[in-house]
Amino acid sequence: MAKLDPTKMKDWEIAEAAEATMKTAYQLRDEMGLKEKELFPYGHYVGKIDYMSVLDRLKDKPNGKYIEVTAITPTPLGEGKTTTSMGLVQGLGKIGKNVMGAIRQPSGGPTFNIKGSAAGGGLAQCIPLSDFSLGLTGDIDAITNAHNLAMVALTSRIQHEFNYADDMLAKKNLRRLNIDPRNPAMGWAIDFCAQALRDIIIGLGSKMDGFMMKSGFQITVSSEIMAILAVANDLRDLRTRMAKIVVAYDKSGRPITTHDLEVDGAMTALMTKAINPNLMQTIEGQPVLVHAGPFANIAIGQSSIIADRIGLKLADYHVTESGFGADIGFEKFWNLKCRFSGLVPNCSVIVTTVRALKMHGGGPKVVPGQPLDTAYIEKNTALVEKGVENLLAHIETVKKSGIAPVVCINHFYTDTDDEVHIIKERAEALGARVAISKHWELGGEGAIDLAQAVVEACEETHHFRFLYEDDTTLKDQIARIATEVYGADGVSYTPEAEAKAWKVQTDPELSKLGTCMVKTHLSLSHDPDIKGRPKGWTLPIRDILIYGGAGFIVPVAGAIKLMPGTASDPAFRNIDVDVTTGKVQGLF
Amino acid sequence: MAKLDPTKMKDWEIAEAAEATMKTAYQLRDEMGLKEKELFPYGHYVGKIDYMSVLDRLKDKPNGKYIEVTAITPTPLGEGKTTTSMGLVQGLGKIGKNVMGAIRQPSGGPTFNIKGSAAGGGLAQCIPLSDFSLGLTGDIDAITNAHNLAMVALTSRIQHEFNYADDMLAKKNLRRLNIDPRNPAMGWAIDFCAQALRDIIIGLGSKMDGFMMKSGFQITVSSEIMAILAVANDLRDLRTRMAKIVVAYDKSGRPITTHDLEVDGAMTALMTKAINPNLMQTIEGQPVLVHAGPFANIAIGQSSIIADRIGLKLADYHVTESGFGADIGFEKFWNLKCRFSGLVPNCSVIVTTVRALKMHGGGPKVVPGQPLDTAYIEKNTALVEKGVENLLAHIETVKKSGIAPVVCINHFYTDTDDEVHIIKERAEALGARVAISKHWELGGEGAIDLAQAVVEACEETHHFRFLYEDDTTLKDQIARIATEVYGADGVSYTPEAEAKAWKVQTDPELSKLGTCMVKTHLSLSHDPDIKGRPKGWTLPIRDILIYGGAGFIVPVAGAIKLMPGTASDPAFRNIDVDVTTGKVQGLF
Repeated sequence: MAKLDPTKMKDWEIAEAAEATMKTAYQLRDEMGLKEKELFPYGHYVGKIDYMSVLDRLKDKPNGKYIEVTAITPTPLGEGKTTTSMGLVQGLGKIGKNVMGAIRQPSGGPTFNIKGSAAGGGLAQCIPLSDFSLGLTGDIDAITNAHNLAMVALTSRIQHEFNYADDMLAKKNLRRLNIDPRNPAMGWAIDFCAQALRDIIIGLGSKMDGFMMKSGFQITVSSEIMAILAVANDLRDLRTRMAKIVVAYDKSGRPITTHDLEVDGAMTALMTKAINPNLMQTIEGQPVLVHAGPFANIAIGQSSIIADRIGLKLADYHVTESGFGADIGFEKFWNLKCRFSGLVPNCSVIVTTVRALKMHGGGPKVVPGQPLDTAYIEKNTALVEKGVENLLAHIETVKKSGIAPVVCINHFYTDTDDEVHIIKERAEALGARVAISKHWELGGEGAIDLAQAVVEACEETHHFRFLYEDDTTLKDQIARIATEVYGADGVSYTPEAEAKAWKVQTDPELSKLGTCMVKTHLSLSHDPDIKGRPKGWTLPIRDILIYGGAGFIVPVAGAIKLMPGTASDPAFRNIDVDVTTGKVQGLF
Repeated sequence: MAKLDPTKMKDWEIAEAAEATMKTAYQLRDEMGLKEKELFPYGHYVGKIDYMSVLDRLKDKPNGKYIEVTAITPTPLGEGKTTTSMGLVQGLGKIGKNVMGAIRQPSGGPTFNIKGSAAGGGLAQCIPLSDFSLGLTGDIDAITNAHNLAMVALTSRIQHEFNYADDMLAKKNLRRLNIDPRNPAMGWAIDFCAQALRDIIIGLGSKMDGFMMKSGFQITVSSEIMAILAVANDLRDLRTRMAKIVVAYDKSGRPITTHDLEVDGAMTALMTKAINPNLMQTIEGQPVLVHAGPFANIAIGQSSIIADRIGLKLADYHVTESGFGADIGFEKFWNLKCRFSGLVPNCSVIVTTVRALKMHGGGPKVVPGQPLDTAYIEKNTALVEKGVENLLAHIETVKKSGIAPVVCINHFYTDTDDEVHIIKERAEALGARVAISKHWELGGEGAIDLAQAVVEACEETHHFRFLYEDDTTLKDQIARIATEVYGADGVSYTPEAEAKAWKVQTDPELSKLGTCMVKTHLSLSHDPDIKGRPKGWTLPIRDILIYGGAGFIVPVAGAIKLMPGTASDPAFRNIDVDVTTGKVQGLF
């Protein structure tokens, strides 16, 4: 591969250059010690790993070191968490370690809207880019289909129960479920930002299609089925979870599940390929598993347990990514994913940049398309001093789990030594290791310090503990997350949320479940405009959803919706195909 | 492969037994003379063929013989058209011919509803079955996504035009399109039978999501983008068509296209893999391409032109299937697909069974789950005499195209010689070859007579001609199809359809397009209850749609909808997964 210069090339140009000499999926398979049949190729450069065979074959092999990557509260400047995940994998590779990574598959929503893809950047990327960005091997489509099949089962059942008397239903071996169309528990899924489908009325029509009810679509990555893919330990676990999804309630308020609708088996059938993680690679050729989805604000937002189980068996160091800041992505990794998997992480990398901390310190708003304020380009230690509080909050969160925190200062050429020094000093005072990393500019070579810090942290002994126990009540779980992770003074509930919380707490099954908060990623609080480390506020819970299959309760904080909107200048305007080569252009 | 007995085994059991010894996709690739890079494997037994490389490499090679498979008007008894397509491929293989087949990918709608999969049956099947039935390599999902991305572009644009003044739009390099929310040209797509989504109201909400309009979902296989996949000659052609899809109208009635919404490039990007046909195999190991979708009643329902172009280059005999009876599937093959491809077929196989003709002759209604009336099990020449008229109508249709018709009597063990004789005599009197075929029971061995009849028919010289010319007006096209193919006395129009027809006929571009009728497949007429060969009726046109990208006009006849409904005893109830092996069970 010729020398690539990220200061002069766009990310997709670097990806394209790296793809010209990337390894085939077969080469990766052989290097990883997989059997021939354990890799299902999807084209020549991507594949799926037969998790069942690999985990069975290696069940007695000890696990490698387990490294999680999280970040400070995101800003529009981009902190580079996936970039750092890829950089760390490349850095560990550079110092001779047997390493793998696990990241999440991007959603079609951001890819065609504002954020673009999430394959890393500069000289730290996951390739091939267009496979990664455009649906990969179809896992998200499988989830969309499984989710919507449940809704087809629900709505056609409502319609048939309208039309048929009990004896007619009995002839088809059906009992009347008495579904309440005024009280659906879930809507439909589509993997785009489709605000027009957020709130809709369905079932206009007559005898064969009419029953009219309020419904809506959520973005697929926030579907309970995506959460199930992320947290299932194996197919048996996935099958069991698929039966417990609450789709609606009957007229006396009892839940109607996918199992009641006899659709859980067919939904699982749609997921039999999706359960196998996707094999890709860094631009320096280390294996990367891509599995499950993003959006830790409105979803669990974790790379999958199955991918991590494979990485821990095949590699000595396995790097896994969780979504957004440590308040949401890491908190869910810690209290949900690790609880479901039983796996204990060795260290957690918290990604920060000098520029982002300046914004948290009160730096001016960043407007896309307008030149960056000088505060972000020139030295400004005052802003860094104030903004570093956001980083410290996330370090404290990681420390509460007992996992060793490693701060990665994702270096930018405008950073000054004085600014970096402030961050380093404050973070180290809290007991974190700190590494300055230049993987964006230099690839694995630039991440050697980070890699070494991580290797050291993994050698530490530590005492992993959850924030709450299995028997902590829902409202106590929420209170602990709100006060100990977000820094709120307390929690408030709408009457609706209060009633639902009470219902959960008094239900013998639901009261055992954990919490997967829906909250903006743009602030430690529920208000996306409040940067830094907000003090003196209360977390307002608007609604409470039950994800019985995923196995957690979903409190919804603030105004955030499960269906984002497409903006007025979306990315799809610039995406096209070269019809002479078939290559996709304009992804970013 | 051990001896398989279809009278004792279910179709999926035969498929499973055959899959135990099937060829890998790599073996098929080598046998077909493909270069290593020209096959993109999807797992070990399925792949996609790099059409661009193959067609470029073989551009100077003469085409093989081109055989189309159609049928009489379908009945609930099942005539076995895909079974015959597979049987014919196997039969041609058995007599030593270099043969390939092309069939359509099944839709998730029927798979999870009533009809089940469409992989053939008995000893004439396409495998592996669960890949075939459960989304294959994701082509239909790609179409769903491309279709819905257009709708996201439309609806978010409507919302932003509500919110922003012209100068704000101009800053984002957007001009006001003035989309009329009361006059959408298309809705959303989902590949299930979801009657609840047939007619819906979307955009309930406030500033960021509200604008309220009527909308709806069609089943994905009826999407214009599926039609584009079927008729595109290559990626350049697909890209051009993708820009011409009419999504809505502006307030003065002018069409708003995907190009106006700047989403045509991104939609094409979503289709870059789908354009490559999927490679599968018969249970006797001949290569079968699976590409594009079914539903010739509400869609074009053809296997793709690209698949046929590849088959004609790689094989000496290429068998392609069109949907349902010759009135709709063959008519569209003849007047649309062949017009777009420039390819001239050599022969057309019309599949019939004795039992189905008895139903067309007035035999009693068949009720699923109840035992078959003795009329279908015992000899009844009177019903066959009357019902054979349906077959004769389809033979006459094929003859109008100038293509040699070969009638295949798909033999069932209850058929008597007298009954078969009536069919043979009447069909031969019209100039058709007739073969009795036992491929369901015996595989390729049972289809040798059929294969030989086809080989003979392919040697005939014939004069292929279209039913209408490029400059025939829309209403004349519709009249010719109605009277000369369906046997109607004439055509009637609703005022709405009349107005739209006039608009098409006076538009310089639209007036050049062909006709893709939407009509029930269950009758030669628009009324699914009228069997046989209906006389003395008028075809009522209810609506006219414009598929500007696919390149045809879509008149809608009778009551048929683009979104079927899920029945009260759907197939999804019986589908499940063996969690110890990952195998899907209960597909049929």
